[in-house]
Amino acid sequence: MTSTSIFDSNSPHPEPSTLTAFAQNNLDRLAEKRTENCVLDALKFEGTHLLAFAGNKLILKHDDRVLDPLFSVYELAELDPDFEKAILLGHKENGEPRVAVPVNIPEDALASHYKPVDARTLYRDQLIGDELLGEVAQAVALINWNGDNRFCGRCGSMMELRIGGYKRICAACSHTIFPRTDPVVIMLTIDLERELCLLGRGAHFAPGMYSCLAGFVEPGETIENAVRRETHEEANIEVGRVRYHASQPWPMPHTLMIGCYAAALTRDITRDEAELEDCRWFDREEVARLLDMTSADGRSPPPRGAIAHRLMRDWIDWDSAR
Amino acid sequence: MTSTSIFDSNSPHPEPSTLTAFAQNNLDRLAEKRTENCVLDALKFEGTHLLAFAGNKLILKHDDRVLDPLFSVYELAELDPDFEKAILLGHKENGEPRVAVPVNIPEDALASHYKPVDARTLYRDQLIGDELLGEVAQAVALINWNGDNRFCGRCGSMMELRIGGYKRICAACSHTIFPRTDPVVIMLTIDLERELCLLGRGAHFAPGMYSCLAGFVEPGETIENAVRRETHEEANIEVGRVRYHASQPWPMPHTLMIGCYAAALTRDITRDEAELEDCRWFDREEVARLLDMTSADGRSPPPRGAIAHRLMRDWIDWDSAR
Repeated sequence: MTSTSIFDSNSPHPEPSTLTAFAQNNLDRLAEKRTENCVLDALKFEGTHLLAFAGNKLILKHDDRVLDPLFSVYELAELDPDFEKAILLGHKENGEPRVAVPVNIPEDALASHYKPVDARTLYRDQLIGDELLGEVAQAVALINWNGDNRFCGRCGSMMELRIGGYKRICAACSHTIFPRTDPVVIMLTIDLERELCLLGRGAHFAPGMYSCLAGFVEPGETIENAVRRETHEEANIEVGRVRYHASQPWPMPHTLMIGCYAAALTRDITRDEAELEDCRWFDREEVARLLDMTSADGRSPPPRGAIAHRLMRDWIDWDSAR
Repeated sequence: MTSTSIFDSNSPHPEPSTLTAFAQNNLDRLAEKRTENCVLDALKFEGTHLLAFAGNKLILKHDDRVLDPLFSVYELAELDPDFEKAILLGHKENGEPRVAVPVNIPEDALASHYKPVDARTLYRDQLIGDELLGEVAQAVALINWNGDNRFCGRCGSMMELRIGGYKRICAACSHTIFPRTDPVVIMLTIDLERELCLLGRGAHFAPGMYSCLAGFVEPGETIENAVRRETHEEANIEVGRVRYHASQPWPMPHTLMIGCYAAALTRDITRDEAELEDCRWFDREEVARLLDMTSADGRSPPPRGAIAHRLMRDWIDWDSAR
């Protein structure tokens, strides 16, 4: 008897999740050991660097050539940082703490050598390195969650930030809450007989872009049932087997994308017209052209690093990599 | 080229998620089509049955022999139901709507032929059928989420329930929120060379119970990295490969359990003493005795239907089922 077969995988990569954007966060989070003083301790550490946020946008320092998101405590002073709302993300391997802090200067009042950029643009335009992008994903989620929970949902009183931004407690009723992460299923549904996959385009997509269908996991639902329900609701396609493939943090504002393959049991698409502008079957050659941006009809793929791109690419590469 | 191999699985079951408790919810949720009037329409439907809640406990009608959680609108009247807070869960295959509603009578003032029971007890003592248990999981999550968000987190004003309990909007600032589901990783970590698995017991566990390690997925983290981080933090064991196995809705109050196998790279355990009372390696025979409740030392397994039980059982059955 051997357990090795549990980890046997016929996938093209040992761990596809490592190939998605926002996933390269190597901070040591010390999740069980956050203290009430952890941010103060971090700010005293010589060489601490901070990520600064105007609203939910990361502030980049820029001159003619360089975009730099890392501020020293000293550099940050002129932006009026709100250290009461600072969040300890974790520590680099060399012991350097990484802190995220909102500033009180509004986005449109920032001096011209500062550039506020949202997470989607940072990723799409590849403005910062992969590891920093992962740290920003964590920071955006926590900045948003803390900002969205200033008041207690149970009694309406003020909540207080605790343990470096990872807990909030109501000063009046002691109701305690922890950071929120929203699981979303995103699936490439495959017609195994015809070797076709199902892609759609939402009305809010970039012009010409086709991608996987997706939707929030509902309360009281398994991942597999969420895949089947969403595919049924959006395209009226019945799904049988589901295989998990990869996951990705998606900071818009605090989502966990759960990427799956789904085996279609039916063929006739009826799209949800409120959700989708188009939805159709694509063969491998069409998907290959889409990913290579060589579609004659101006169609485009989800950006590289998006988990939908990964699902599409890995479907094409599946067999050749075995 | 064929895509069938994507769905090839060497697991003992076609879909282990279907074998977990709380997963048998067959309601048609019509997630994209919930309207402002959906609860009122459901209450008008002849033959509608409701699940009633005192706080977060399901109310069961009971006489000497039968426990029944399904109320007609008429039967519910004496419990002072708060229909303003009623939630439409979905529809049965025959078109019958399923509604969850909190009552204003406190738990300890209920007449003796009503029995309020929490979700954990319903499941552990198998008091209701599997499908109803799945519906209760959905209901508990939504009752709790609506109750925890009476006030707006951004501005402290009252929030209003919308589309049958699946959305809340602030009357003052229009901040809009959707139901919350918390992803948790739970993993059976395996030493492939020695054929051992890692189990621990938390201080809050039932006496003698050993189970898989688990923890919340953090903002900005993949599922695989959460498995590695939690195993490192709780047991100081390094993990390499991770394989997703199954998921389970867990209504305490609104969690999504994500069950994985993890391959250990190290052997020496240092447990987190604040989290775990004990943590050690078990061989297959010990796990088999644990699951069969025949351990001589009084050790016990996680209850049947728990995803940890599934991970342990499927590890043992893996090869024999191939």
